[in-house]
Amino acid sequence: MAVYTEVSDEELEAFLSAYDLGQVLACKGIAEGVENSNYFLQTTAGAFILTLYEKRVREEDLPFFLGLMEHLSARGLTCPQPVRNRAGHALGRLAGRPAAIVTFLTGVSVRRPNARHCHAVGRALAQLHEAGADFGMRRANGLSLQSWRPLFAQAEAAADQVAPGLAERTRRELAYLEARWPEGLPIGVIHADLFTDNVFFIGEEVSGLIDFYFACTDLLAYDLAICLNAWCFEPDGSFNLTKGRAMIVGYERIRPLNDAEAEVLPILCRGSALRFMLTRLVDWLNVPPGALVKPKDPLEYDRKLAFHRHVRNAAEYGLER
Amino acid sequence: MAVYTEVSDEELEAFLSAYDLGQVLACKGIAEGVENSNYFLQTTAGAFILTLYEKRVREEDLPFFLGLMEHLSARGLTCPQPVRNRAGHALGRLAGRPAAIVTFLTGVSVRRPNARHCHAVGRALAQLHEAGADFGMRRANGLSLQSWRPLFAQAEAAADQVAPGLAERTRRELAYLEARWPEGLPIGVIHADLFTDNVFFIGEEVSGLIDFYFACTDLLAYDLAICLNAWCFEPDGSFNLTKGRAMIVGYERIRPLNDAEAEVLPILCRGSALRFMLTRLVDWLNVPPGALVKPKDPLEYDRKLAFHRHVRNAAEYGLER
Repeated sequence: MAVYTEVSDEELEAFLSAYDLGQVLACKGIAEGVENSNYFLQTTAGAFILTLYEKRVREEDLPFFLGLMEHLSARGLTCPQPVRNRAGHALGRLAGRPAAIVTFLTGVSVRRPNARHCHAVGRALAQLHEAGADFGMRRANGLSLQSWRPLFAQAEAAADQVAPGLAERTRRELAYLEARWPEGLPIGVIHADLFTDNVFFIGEEVSGLIDFYFACTDLLAYDLAICLNAWCFEPDGSFNLTKGRAMIVGYERIRPLNDAEAEVLPILCRGSALRFMLTRLVDWLNVPPGALVKPKDPLEYDRKLAFHRHVRNAAEYGLER
Repeated sequence: MAVYTEVSDEELEAFLSAYDLGQVLACKGIAEGVENSNYFLQTTAGAFILTLYEKRVREEDLPFFLGLMEHLSARGLTCPQPVRNRAGHALGRLAGRPAAIVTFLTGVSVRRPNARHCHAVGRALAQLHEAGADFGMRRANGLSLQSWRPLFAQAEAAADQVAPGLAERTRRELAYLEARWPEGLPIGVIHADLFTDNVFFIGEEVSGLIDFYFACTDLLAYDLAICLNAWCFEPDGSFNLTKGRAMIVGYERIRPLNDAEAEVLPILCRGSALRFMLTRLVDWLNVPPGALVKPKDPLEYDRKLAFHRHVRNAAEYGLER
């Protein structure tokens, strides 16, 4: 929730002059996305989002992200569609930053999803996986298993200041997951960050998915595990089995899990909970003075991990066979 | 530039259910206005701004501000038009704050206006003064002459830490203005904060005026003095006489200044420069830790004051007689 980069009138005008978007009717910084600067851009040609990529997004990854959004849009998934300028480029530079224009999606994110929302998200996630199946580019998941130990190393010494015992719990969890992380499951394009902020609804229908800046090539079922963590826990920390079931049913309507994926779903849920706990923990311990963004609580995911450690099989998330 | 108050889905839904605005298609926090929380709200009925009034706006003043916008809209001025709910109220409560919905205006603010922009703003300011002439409510200007000494008292002890000699310069300026502040000039509704952020353009035509939350009843020519300060200085601190002339000509096309107003324009320019120097100085010295908003530089207005002290008559701002 921040606009980091201010764009001057002259810079904006020069940037837009390369596009066929007509006259600018409005351009406002919006509080969306914590990683980049986003502007709502209205022109005589329609409504768009102008994004300036800040330093947390690696410039060499942008062709993957923009190419993916273009691919998914072409396959009928409602996601932001990159707009190419007259020279055919979707990626340009503005105010010293890489920048792109994508179509504006209507819809609102829900902060407290119900089971019908979870069902719709499961379905949309599987549609994304299906639509991404023939996407030609690959990007390794920089925040999967192999990154967790180095991430933890940045936070280990101070972890117990955040919660007593957190360091030891995390060491054990890491060792457990490193010994059991699955291989041979179906892989493909995953969103990898499909939190409630990143799904728009009109009523209870999904109207669009946004923020593909963690998308990568990884285990498809891991993406479902991320969503189970992000959508199906209650504010009090309890797992809502009705929501989990609704999400998994929605997902399997489009793409049924195979037996191997079903078998390891608890491991994948633990892994994705650890991933968000660790990145949040590192951010929590490194809030710069005067930061614009309040860091998210790592302990929310420490508590989710505690739940997952007691799960024996995927039925406890709502998978029915 | 901040969204201070987060609104939950349930609260928003309950609030909007009192209006005839159809279905919500988008609702995004926008980086507009430093005093309030603003959301871009798109519904099947159109585009709107939802504002939650934060603590710097006094709740008892809101009927004046909303009534004024309604009055000016009805007189043909393009400004945000308050939307009344089915019970006929333009002001409600949301997330514990007073809240209102106004129409969304297209246009973009210019950060570096040219003389044609200044001409258009002068004209628009005079149109506002004319349109406000028969507005029935009054609100005293809480940031005029009588407030400057108490404001300075909050900052006097620390002023020289901001710039050497600032305290003494300001003491003299205050005494000078208190001895010479004019009486008997035409009064009426003034915007009192018509900075570049608050004027939208499409091309070089004014498409709307926004942010009426400092509007009050005061000397009309004082509003022009505020605009000369806000629009006609260059980034290097020099006064651009071409812009000043363009603005005054634009203003007088609609509402000619009388002789008394022309005579005291230099005093009014000094007063308005002192007003912004003082409020900025107090803010500068009282930035809360972790503040979301970077305070504006009081010394910009200290330098403008130095210019005004050497002005002998209104011709030096571009007034031609």
